[in-house]
Amino acid sequence: MIVEVKSPVPSDIEIAQAAKLRPIREVAEELGLSEDDLDLYGKYKAKVHLDVLERLKDRPNAKYIDVTAITPTPLGEGKTVTTISLSQGLHYIGKKVFTCIRQPSQGPTFGIKGGAAGGGYAQIVPMEDFNLHLTGDIHAVGAANNLLAAAIDARIMHEDEMSDERLLKALCPDDKFAPWMYKRLQKLGIQAEKPSDLSPEDRRRFARLDIDPYSITLNRVIDINDRAIRNVVIGLGTKGDGRPRQTGFDITVASEVMAILALATSLKDLRERIGRMVIGTDKNRNPITAEDLGVAGAMTVLLKDALMPNLMQTLAGTPAFVHAGPFANIAHGNNSIIADMIGLKLVSGGYLVTESGFGADCGMEKFFDIKCRYSGLIPNCVVMVASIRALKMHGGGPRVVAGVPLNPAYKQENLELLEKGLCNLEANIKIALKFGIPVVVSINKFTTDTDREIALVKEAAIAAGAETAVVNEGWAKGEAGAAELAEAVVAACEKPSNFRFLYPLDIPIKDKIEIIAKEIYGADGVIFEAAAQQKIKLYTELGYDKLPINMAKTHLSLSHNPDWKGVPKGYMLPVRDIRASVGAGFLYPLCGAMRTMPGLPSRPVFMDIDIDVETGKVIGLS
Amino acid sequence: MIVEVKSPVPSDIEIAQAAKLRPIREVAEELGLSEDDLDLYGKYKAKVHLDVLERLKDRPNAKYIDVTAITPTPLGEGKTVTTISLSQGLHYIGKKVFTCIRQPSQGPTFGIKGGAAGGGYAQIVPMEDFNLHLTGDIHAVGAANNLLAAAIDARIMHEDEMSDERLLKALCPDDKFAPWMYKRLQKLGIQAEKPSDLSPEDRRRFARLDIDPYSITLNRVIDINDRAIRNVVIGLGTKGDGRPRQTGFDITVASEVMAILALATSLKDLRERIGRMVIGTDKNRNPITAEDLGVAGAMTVLLKDALMPNLMQTLAGTPAFVHAGPFANIAHGNNSIIADMIGLKLVSGGYLVTESGFGADCGMEKFFDIKCRYSGLIPNCVVMVASIRALKMHGGGPRVVAGVPLNPAYKQENLELLEKGLCNLEANIKIALKFGIPVVVSINKFTTDTDREIALVKEAAIAAGAETAVVNEGWAKGEAGAAELAEAVVAACEKPSNFRFLYPLDIPIKDKIEIIAKEIYGADGVIFEAAAQQKIKLYTELGYDKLPINMAKTHLSLSHNPDWKGVPKGYMLPVRDIRASVGAGFLYPLCGAMRTMPGLPSRPVFMDIDIDVETGKVIGLS
Repeated sequence: MIVEVKSPVPSDIEIAQAAKLRPIREVAEELGLSEDDLDLYGKYKAKVHLDVLERLKDRPNAKYIDVTAITPTPLGEGKTVTTISLSQGLHYIGKKVFTCIRQPSQGPTFGIKGGAAGGGYAQIVPMEDFNLHLTGDIHAVGAANNLLAAAIDARIMHEDEMSDERLLKALCPDDKFAPWMYKRLQKLGIQAEKPSDLSPEDRRRFARLDIDPYSITLNRVIDINDRAIRNVVIGLGTKGDGRPRQTGFDITVASEVMAILALATSLKDLRERIGRMVIGTDKNRNPITAEDLGVAGAMTVLLKDALMPNLMQTLAGTPAFVHAGPFANIAHGNNSIIADMIGLKLVSGGYLVTESGFGADCGMEKFFDIKCRYSGLIPNCVVMVASIRALKMHGGGPRVVAGVPLNPAYKQENLELLEKGLCNLEANIKIALKFGIPVVVSINKFTTDTDREIALVKEAAIAAGAETAVVNEGWAKGEAGAAELAEAVVAACEKPSNFRFLYPLDIPIKDKIEIIAKEIYGADGVIFEAAAQQKIKLYTELGYDKLPINMAKTHLSLSHNPDWKGVPKGYMLPVRDIRASVGAGFLYPLCGAMRTMPGLPSRPVFMDIDIDVETGKVIGLS
Repeated sequence: MIVEVKSPVPSDIEIAQAAKLRPIREVAEELGLSEDDLDLYGKYKAKVHLDVLERLKDRPNAKYIDVTAITPTPLGEGKTVTTISLSQGLHYIGKKVFTCIRQPSQGPTFGIKGGAAGGGYAQIVPMEDFNLHLTGDIHAVGAANNLLAAAIDARIMHEDEMSDERLLKALCPDDKFAPWMYKRLQKLGIQAEKPSDLSPEDRRRFARLDIDPYSITLNRVIDINDRAIRNVVIGLGTKGDGRPRQTGFDITVASEVMAILALATSLKDLRERIGRMVIGTDKNRNPITAEDLGVAGAMTVLLKDALMPNLMQTLAGTPAFVHAGPFANIAHGNNSIIADMIGLKLVSGGYLVTESGFGADCGMEKFFDIKCRYSGLIPNCVVMVASIRALKMHGGGPRVVAGVPLNPAYKQENLELLEKGLCNLEANIKIALKFGIPVVVSINKFTTDTDREIALVKEAAIAAGAETAVVNEGWAKGEAGAAELAEAVVAACEKPSNFRFLYPLDIPIKDKIEIIAKEIYGADGVIFEAAAQQKIKLYTELGYDKLPINMAKTHLSLSHNPDWKGVPKGYMLPVRDIRASVGAGFLYPLCGAMRTMPGLPSRPVFMDIDIDVETGKVIGLS
């Protein structure tokens, strides 16, 4: 550990600021990275160049471990702490280890939630950098998304003002096509050497995108919790200020560009995915892409540095990539493929620990069926985080609400409530086992949990098929506190992994959704509402039916209803609508309203945050 | 030079990419900076820690040179190229030199204008980094501004929903005041140890900001040319989505936060200026500040890295700070004070070259009266950039429009037109001389300019009081091409500088504006419209009348009318309204409509920009 472990455990920021950080160059050197492989960002962060992958391509991959959780309370059950703890524990027992984790949005850092760098003696440091701009990747995602949005509205205005002829001349001033224009010509089935060769009809088809303003699905984004811009009318003012239409702002991490950054396997792949992004349709319902707008190249240029993963360190001084942070409902909720690919080579012979968002039904299913499908990587072990608190809630305990003190029912032994809630743990273990991967249950022990409660959870976990269940005390005790968990994971990784996807890609959209609903959520079937049915038809015609499915569902229940705890049974899953992230490469059925822009509460966390102007130290970040 | 000078001159990006960059660590070492003084951002950029200033405080400052220009055409007359050329030329003749320059907005890089890193053999490199995210400072400014904006609208909504009692309880959950709350209490003249001590009336006064939505002057910002969000209605949707009101988005560099970043002299000063930002008033017309919203600390935290200047290099391998880029109309259009302060120490005994935005009537006047006033730094020389093209325009030549080929009148010798236009050069030289600083005229020579034309300009310059006038060929010939200019500047810096401000701070607002209008713009007087008169009254009552004046005026004429070329005479300057940037520390009278959000043209530059996916090189950036 690079910090002395004290008891009682100080605040997160006190621990983080007391740590004696290793220069990141030293961390990198230990991994076999030279300074030429790095772009340093200060002394404690570095971007790692992608060509490292080519150099190390013949090395075998490290063992690949995904940390997931049972269905959580709104407070979260300690998945990030477990991910970092486990990494620190593996280091403690002498293993090579790499941690891959999402970069959190800056929005919640100043909103309700506060920081996300782990907690106690299981943190990524420096925590200020982790929680703030880091190396600017999220800002780059925002810039790329918003350049695309500006391009759409500017194009609508200019097309409104110009004849086909003038439009073509503006786009091709020297009677030459720009390189990206050939892709549009090909899509339209037009063959031409130069713009003046086009027939009047083809001039119109080529130059006029004729975007239907009501079809536009791309929102602008901002990395701030700003509820007041969820729904806006833009384009007001004069004729030169765009055209009025209603639209909205999402938080940056909810953007498709962020999902693309997380799923791209190379710069080339990134460029192609950006080009394929569909922003809406023309008035004849043909999809319009970023490539059609001629902006995909510039967007990729804005993202070229963001594609390199960010090297940081844990409180054990072990290496961690903090890279990409897509939402876990409308997107897939996992850190970048690139980070995992590089990390698995850098600790060949060791262990790479990654985390997927929300519970096993959400982020883990997507980790397997979307992320692993695109990366080709094979996981070796799942760590399932459980807390007595959440299990009691699933057993019928009182409502748990963020920002409200926990009900006393959760602070005293209650074996009956716990036992009733164990079904949720069992169901989540079974979900993981469906993918053919061994499961280790990690109990995030709170001080009020009793030995008998712990014993009950362990027993149930093993009965449900887990390899084992252990208590993780990494939050309070650092790497030593996670040694047992580390040993359990090492043992599980020795087991054969029979990894399989839940569904093949070449079956109909409806079938894929039904498989997930029944096998993962325990529903009896799916009700496709009218909008969803229309989309299935449309997307099948457009050839998007071969994409994997990214369910947009609440994480607070195995079902679509956040109030149904335990293991909901005897229900049909309603799919309201289906959307497509064609660039990222998935369809996302909507099972309920998904919030893509958080708000600020009446007392935001920012009110506690300040800077010591003498030392430059950040105060009050949690 | 770190690149071989070729003829004909290749494209800007070809030159930049052919350069053999010096590791920035080496550039820093030469300046006496150790690695502990730096935060590297890759190999060719670094942030310099502010504590360097304390260490070097006893060194004498270098000579301090401001590059300005005559009233330009819309194409610009080569001020950045001259700034960099001069620096390279000073290096060529064996002087120590530092360049300080603004960071450009990313918006225009993708809009009409393209990049801003200089051009030809006078560039800051790497030009891709210069024109794109650099080290993320502009993104940080945007985040700080937008956190403040979100805080305003969230507060309005929460106050609408909560009683005084609940509001106070939400703000002070443990019956304790947060540190910043004491500032609000003091402002309100309330003495209290803890919230429960407050009288019901003081509870209301303290907890309820009661912001008047129609008074809010703070816009949200984005670093993209996005005309469609100039005017927007926000807060649509349901009751939990804010409250509807009309507002707008500016480009990030037009924000007061950017002006503050450029004017802050220390972290402490930054924190205080942010706290003083006035976002609007309550319903009784009392100003509401960022401090009142409890968000000034968090905003400063977001800006703590942005305050450190960014070290880069010129094509001569000499050091350059690229730091802060406030607008030159509604703000003061100069790079940061911090960069100049550090640079002047680092090349003690040498020369620091900086640039101010637009012509001498705009950026230079503000350089002296605002920037130098806040920094306490004394300039030694002004370099006035002139082009034959612009002078002919002032003599009555045809209209010059960006994006339209130049009229042939500008490409052939025309001594008559030129002679008529020389009055603009003379007027601008006289403006500079008013501040007591020697002036060197630098002629930015185009290939079509004739020797007789050049001779005419030189003669007029010297007659108007310039020390000398020389041709700068740094664009085509690199450092050698600017040797003559460098020698001229060295000579001018030996002259005594009798620096004086144009006006004292303690005279009435009206008087200050009238002095600028008459002495700088050549107006007969000022017409204060009703709104302006009201503001003068209000700001005087509020004590803002001691602030310096930042005129928001077109840069395309010495007057307020962009069509009036040469030296307009016999007119009254209309001041439509006056606004206050209390945090930045200036009032800005509006002489005409100032655009604070550019738009994308029908063929934006982004259509030429792409990435080579094999090499990672940026293509088409200009």
